[in-house]
Amino acid sequence: MPLHILPKALTALIDDFGSLPGVGARTAERYAYAVLRRNPKSAKQLAQSLDRLHDRVKTCPKTFALIDASEEISPLYADKSRNKQLVCVVEEPLDIVALERTGQFTGTYHVLGGVISPIDGIGPEQLHIPELIDRIKSDDVQEVIIATNASVEGESTALFLQRYIQEAGLTITVSRLARGIPVGVDLEYADQITLTHALEGRKQL
Amino acid sequence: MPLHILPKALTALIDDFGSLPGVGARTAERYAYAVLRRNPKSAKQLAQSLDRLHDRVKTCPKTFALIDASEEISPLYADKSRNKQLVCVVEEPLDIVALERTGQFTGTYHVLGGVISPIDGIGPEQLHIPELIDRIKSDDVQEVIIATNASVEGESTALFLQRYIQEAGLTITVSRLARGIPVGVDLEYADQITLTHALEGRKQL
Repeated sequence: MPLHILPKALTALIDDFGSLPGVGARTAERYAYAVLRRNPKSAKQLAQSLDRLHDRVKTCPKTFALIDASEEISPLYADKSRNKQLVCVVEEPLDIVALERTGQFTGTYHVLGGVISPIDGIGPEQLHIPELIDRIKSDDVQEVIIATNASVEGESTALFLQRYIQEAGLTITVSRLARGIPVGVDLEYADQITLTHALEGRKQL
Repeated sequence: MPLHILPKALTALIDDFGSLPGVGARTAERYAYAVLRRNPKSAKQLAQSLDRLHDRVKTCPKTFALIDASEEISPLYADKSRNKQLVCVVEEPLDIVALERTGQFTGTYHVLGGVISPIDGIGPEQLHIPELIDRIKSDDVQEVIIATNASVEGESTALFLQRYIQEAGLTITVSRLARGIPVGVDLEYADQITLTHALEGRKQL
């Protein structure tokens, strides 16, 4: 049996940290050692946050955003100042955070819970698409903004959604987030497809 | 009061993850969401690992390596096959892991617990230097390999240690890890100082 170089409790924590996305062995070691060097209270606090997480978070039955277990419905939906006739469709709950940071959107959100991806065995039936159609009908939605990612899967999901809404006989506006050159990026570094989108979507000054 | 976008339990976890070294807001969000999406058992396991950490890990009183709370002394020191007359001095406990991975070192270790850094208010008296001198005497140490980092602080700590050992009247070999070109690195990318070291330390073939 080889000697153990590190204490078992530390090795266990390194293994657990290593299971987080994008965390390799060295990074996991660094995190575990950082936790060990800080006072025990902050380790216990992180432990408690993790322990409580699943019990205290649930999914909103209407928008599929993440909400407190004590809440009935997403506060971003329940809030009277939000326009329920304008729905922004996102892939994942964290996308809402990114959009809310802009402070520019006053509508409501609908989380698909992923994108159509045949390779991963994810078809439209696994996404919250029927619930979106229900919302469009019950809330008299006027516009759906499709804010899926600019990936291949995100694009095809957007296309699918657009057709699905049409075929459901709903005559509402369906829009997609603009594609173009991000702020602060030089033209020479922009890729062909982004530039093509930027040309097509040009605005008259 | 602004609406909370994410559930409180998730925000708390994101804040806690954000306190790990090199983890920004986006990365912390990604970790927290990854934990939430996995089954609750793995979150509880990570919680348990964190909760136990400080109670189950202690410092070896001889080598200052990290050991199980149930152990008296570092197994790397206690092991009979390790040469106690050869001591490798490192800054931090994790440096031992890196050296043990080579499988080439059969001596023992001594952890300084940092480096001399006047800016951070760390003087030689805060490092485990007196204990090293005691070991050199009691274990009849023949060689001390100084394996501090190749940083300014690491170099000056090495220099300090060398003089300290001399002034203590100990006539033992004091060596330093070789500096040179790392494996797989092109000459043109090596910095001046590294190349200077590589020239000085050249080996006859």
